Amino acid sequence: MHFRVGILGATGAVGQRFIQLLEDHPWFTVTALAASERSAGRTYGEVANWMGRTPLPARIAAMTVSECTPDLPCDFVFSGLDAAVAGEIEPAFARAGYPVISNARNFRMAPDVPLLIPEVNPGHTALIDRQDWGQHAGRGRGFIVTNPNCATVGLVMALKPLHDAFGVEAVMVTTLQALSGAGYPGVPSLDILGNVIPHIGGEEDKLETEPNKLLGQLGSEGVAFAGIALSASVNRVAVVDGHLESVAVRLNGAPSPEEVTHVLRDWRAPAAVAGLPSSPERPLVVFDEPAFPQPARHVDLGAGMTASIGKVRACPVMGIKFNVLSHNTIRGAAGGAVLNAELLASEGRIATRV
Amino acid sequence: MHFRVGILGATGAVGQRFIQLLEDHPWFTVTALAASERSAGRTYGEVANWMGRTPLPARIAAMTVSECTPDLPCDFVFSGLDAAVAGEIEPAFARAGYPVISNARNFRMAPDVPLLIPEVNPGHTALIDRQDWGQHAGRGRGFIVTNPNCATVGLVMALKPLHDAFGVEAVMVTTLQALSGAGYPGVPSLDILGNVIPHIGGEEDKLETEPNKLLGQLGSEGVAFAGIALSASVNRVAVVDGHLESVAVRLNGAPSPEEVTHVLRDWRAPAAVAGLPSSPERPLVVFDEPAFPQPARHVDLGAGMTASIGKVRACPVMGIKFNVLSHNTIRGAAGGAVLNAELLASEGRIATRV
Amino acid sequence: MHFRVGILGATGAVGQRFIQLLEDHPWFTVTALAASERSAGRTYGEVANWMGRTPLPARIAAMTVSECTPDLPCDFVFSGLDAAVAGEIEPAFARAGYPVISNARNFRMAPDVPLLIPEVNPGHTALIDRQDWGQHAGRGRGFIVTNPNCATVGLVMALKPLHDAFGVEAVMVTTLQALSGAGYPGVPSLDILGNVIPHIGGEEDKLETEPNKLLGQLGSEGVAFAGIALSASVNRVAVVDGHLESVAVRLNGAPSPEEVTHVLRDWRAPAAVAGLPSSPERPLVVFDEPAFPQPARHVDLGAGMTASIGKVRACPVMGIKFNVLSHNTIRGAAGGAVLNAELLASEGRIATRV
Amino acid sequence: MHFRVGILGATGAVGQRFIQLLEDHPWFTVTALAASERSAGRTYGEVANWMGRTPLPARIAAMTVSECTPDLPCDFVFSGLDAAVAGEIEPAFARAGYPVISNARNFRMAPDVPLLIPEVNPGHTALIDRQDWGQHAGRGRGFIVTNPNCATVGLVMALKPLHDAFGVEAVMVTTLQALSGAGYPGVPSLDILGNVIPHIGGEEDKLETEPNKLLGQLGSEGVAFAGIALSASVNRVAVVDGHLESVAVRLNGAPSPEEVTHVLRDWRAPAAVAGLPSSPERPLVVFDEPAFPQPARHVDLGAGMTASIGKVRACPVMGIKFNVLSHNTIRGAAGGAVLNAELLASEGRIATRV
Repeated sequence: MHFRVGILGATGAVGQRFIQLLEDHPWFTVTALAASERSAGRTYGEVANWMGRTPLPARIAAMTVSECTPDLPCDFVFSGLDAAVAGEIEPAFARAGYPVISNARNFRMAPDVPLLIPEVNPGHTALIDRQDWGQHAGRGRGFIVTNPNCATVGLVMALKPLHDAFGVEAVMVTTLQALSGAGYPGVPSLDILGNVIPHIGGEEDKLETEPNKLLGQLGSEGVAFAGIALSASVNRVAVVDGHLESVAVRLNGAPSPEEVTHVLRDWRAPAAVAGLPSSPERPLVVFDEPAFPQPARHVDLGAGMTASIGKVRACPVMGIKFNVLSHNTIRGAAGGAVLNAELLASEGRIATRV
Repeated sequence: MHFRVGILGATGAVGQRFIQLLEDHPWFTVTALAASERSAGRTYGEVANWMGRTPLPARIAAMTVSECTPDLPCDFVFSGLDAAVAGEIEPAFARAGYPVISNARNFRMAPDVPLLIPEVNPGHTALIDRQDWGQHAGRGRGFIVTNPNCATVGLVMALKPLHDAFGVEAVMVTTLQALSGAGYPGVPSLDILGNVIPHIGGEEDKLETEPNKLLGQLGSEGVAFAGIALSASVNRVAVVDGHLESVAVRLNGAPSPEEVTHVLRDWRAPAAVAGLPSSPERPLVVFDEPAFPQPARHVDLGAGMTASIGKVRACPVMGIKFNVLSHNTIRGAAGGAVLNAELLASEGRIATRV
Repeated sequence: MHFRVGILGATGAVGQRFIQLLEDHPWFTVTALAASERSAGRTYGEVANWMGRTPLPARIAAMTVSECTPDLPCDFVFSGLDAAVAGEIEPAFARAGYPVISNARNFRMAPDVPLLIPEVNPGHTALIDRQDWGQHAGRGRGFIVTNPNCATVGLVMALKPLHDAFGVEAVMVTTLQALSGAGYPGVPSLDILGNVIPHIGGEEDKLETEPNKLLGQLGSEGVAFAGIALSASVNRVAVVDGHLESVAVRLNGAPSPEEVTHVLRDWRAPAAVAGLPSSPERPLVVFDEPAFPQPARHVDLGAGMTASIGKVRACPVMGIKFNVLSHNTIRGAAGGAVLNAELLASEGRIATRV
Repeated sequence: MHFRVGILGATGAVGQRFIQLLEDHPWFTVTALAASERSAGRTYGEVANWMGRTPLPARIAAMTVSECTPDLPCDFVFSGLDAAVAGEIEPAFARAGYPVISNARNFRMAPDVPLLIPEVNPGHTALIDRQDWGQHAGRGRGFIVTNPNCATVGLVMALKPLHDAFGVEAVMVTTLQALSGAGYPGVPSLDILGNVIPHIGGEEDKLETEPNKLLGQLGSEGVAFAGIALSASVNRVAVVDGHLESVAVRLNGAPSPEEVTHVLRDWRAPAAVAGLPSSPERPLVVFDEPAFPQPARHVDLGAGMTASIGKVRACPVMGIKFNVLSHNTIRGAAGGAVLNAELLASEGRIATRV
């Protein structure tokens, strides 16, 4: 299995993560880098302000950046585009027959677009069959698949086994989100050094809606939402990578912290997902040490694809409380999208484009 | 009105704050500094690792530090002692006839000891009459009065007007607490730089119990607790001063965010408290800007005695959500204790000791 | 003595500092706020992203922002303009008869423009008489006076007494500069959290040239530069306010660290400067504690106008080494400019404009 | 080639780095962990506050910690001991016939103890033959080999090629040192968040003496020191790993920045060193981008064993200036010691102990 990959928004923070994660990928090879008109025509090494702690691969540095027009030499595209432009560019690629594996928020809640976490709702890929972007005859069908908001993904990975085992009625979540979630240049240092910013525009709404689609049941009418009452309070903190969330849940049957811990510890990816190249050995790790997980110590577990949980305990108001940590630019963005693409490829939904 | 003041635990973080706040105090003059045996007999300037951004006053620097034995030349004492030693030393001072205005946690929940926020429960000072420390004849009666945990105080200042106006049924709070709350040396820098520690030993328990005493009714049997269901999740963040808290409340009658905002904005200190020297012009400030308050920007409002509130909005699970910020070493420790002493002095409960 | 003041670049970081420092100023009252076209016509409260830890004064918040055209209702202007626009706007104001007390770098090295630190080279104000901006008849003469780069000022305050006492031959300086020196939004948090950036464009050149003008002798031909060999290496660190500098100097006569300490400790402002409203009690403070001064602890000494020195010791290569700290947005920008204006006003060089 | 390794001071910050670096080492296997009496007898997993971002290996976690007595089941020991105890324990191991590869400072300047950076002065291992610790008959000879101070190593790696090519006459260095250099708990967060501490006890002296031994010539009388005039000013900054240093050098013949850059870029390890398992592909990397290297971006180059250099330019006082960055707990501590052991093993100076 081998596919050529294009990256839309290749110079941005998410685009750079795609490049890092696809270096040495067994199935995917980056063959096209696309960014704004301003960068197009120059080499990636010239235009990208490379933020990685490992050097920019020389092959990538030498590639010429294209504009985001749907004629890239690749079989499918990853989109790390800003929402401001994704709404036009992604459908254009879908119309031209490209599978678009997107990290942008624009189409996450569109009824026919899968909002996908492979371990959580792999069956939702079937929604693709309902998409019709009016693509040209003679080429394969293009489509759009999205991954959730960077703060949603860790939460939903923790909720999924609980919803299956008990049923989740209500969720309160307070987030402590990392700086890399705001992109680059993102948060000014004068605003966050020794400080907390208790607001991220639009973020609470995403956390209160996306989980119900992700945990919903796919039926003939599309996804029936899960109907969980969700409330989110978000904060930006001075952490580079890793969203930490204080979660409280009301579960059917009022299980004990021990029962909840047991369910979380036992959760595994479905077999079709567990074997994918970017699938971590464990999607969830549960710590006994109450001060764990911590962003700076545990964000890289499972190469950034494992969500980690700690301090499962009784909540006097909701029943159960715990913390969850996930890597916001790997599991919560580029890595999640790569895993989505792997699932789609393994299902035969991505074809070599001629 | 003028009293001589002793400070127990004078070299610690809270003790240093007492010194800062009492410099130029209209009623209180520091006449005794007491600390551990190790520091006793040397000048304060020699033994204190002064952390203040304003210089250590020369008069204080030249004072000789005493041991914490109940023979200090002062009318009452502030205690910034660690809990490990406060349990023995504070009663010794009370037995010797000293009023002890304590920031330690040891006696906060003792039935006859006021846990006091002057704006919230000034009438609880009457509990003092129930205290009997077996003091020596011929001297005035000693007693202990405490202020709440540094994370409790901001929360309760926000809950008080809501409890009076609507009745609070349940509270969910997630804290982002400052480093100074851990004292000095406190949190190692390698543990917190670019990180969050989602655990502070014993803190969640204090947040889940102290509010019910503070908001309780004083009756003939002592304080009848308020009976609010409380759940706390605590985090340590890389902030110097200022505990920020994400709060959700279930109120009787399900008032709107506008009604809640109105009640919070209209809240004032009782008249007997409003005129005290350390009483801020407003105990609560409510921001309209959703990203406010922030620790680094707003912690010093009202000279660190004002709690500030932001982002009052509907909560899909609990009804109402908001953020609250308060200064943990001023309002939440030394400043709160000074205001407590002022209330007691104004009530004639502190006497000149001969 | 009373003058009406305009602020050019009023919404920026330096402009905001001007507003803070002029609140309650005994001689100067802000009567005009000017900024870019984008802000003009709206109230200051609407357009300024107020960064101060004390609230924006209500009177200022309500003022309408003007464009930077030379018809402001004031007797002189402070300029916190970016260098990109100061080169045109400042001469326009001078031509229109306004004294311009500028923090911009554009005219610092112009032969007829004083580069001024009142304690260091007060006599350089006489350079004003050599300026001719072609001002209109009937109005007073306009002129431009500048203060040095924020990293230069602390260094030169330390060099001045040494140059007078011994003669400075050569200087090596390595800076650790605060974030506020880069303005707002300035340095992205992802670039500096847990990091150091060892480069600030153009900064080393300023540190290697401005001191020779500041320490130069005013003669009939203008300022004869001091001729000191200077070398600077600059770094940006994660500090909010306060530039700390590691300095090594080669002095004539190879004085001992004790002699150097003595000279630094004895230095005082000239009498004409010492009485100005913004003049600190001591322009220099020298610490004995080797770990002092530190930005977070000592930057506010003398209300941010005192430079502090520590760790004076022998240098095996240059002879003498020490550290110096100064507040980069007060002494190094707005506060330095206010002190400059006070000196000029006291000399009768600023007139009421009718 | 295979040896069993003991780690003295295994629970400390340096000890933990040894464990990380020796996991999967091709020649060395950890067979003994020794620490203070307090930890002895318990498993490593119980007693170590593991700081690594990768999980503690299960095999190590299960090992029982021993006391630091010279009867450990291993062929040689790495010492990450504090200086307070290394002075007694290390000679005891040497006397008992163990090679001691030490990171402690105690014996660095001892005439017969190699102070070793394999790329810089590999021939100094011959000093071992001069050591006589009075070891017991029948066992191999024990000895002590040290690596330099964490801030010295990057500096000397940059100086070595310049000293060989031109001759270094004098060096001025100002350091910005990482928190991990102070061990754990190390620097309190309240002292360093948003701050700089311009002092590290004893550090300047090490930087001013160790380079002359490292760059000295080994002769029949031992090492003849290099005689370079060195001056250091040290600062602690809020960085986790990576010491950044602003360096200025006076070189014989006053070479240009281009010549210096050329020499630095061309420098390679001696062949006998280049093939060692921990030897990086390049001991030095030179950046053209003036803002590089930066601790958070480049500290891990060459798996933390490469020193990186930037901003090579003319210095008006010394001749040449540049910045150098090296990883203080890898190249500057545990990694440097491992490379030292590899060199000694390859020379046959470490034997299997029976």
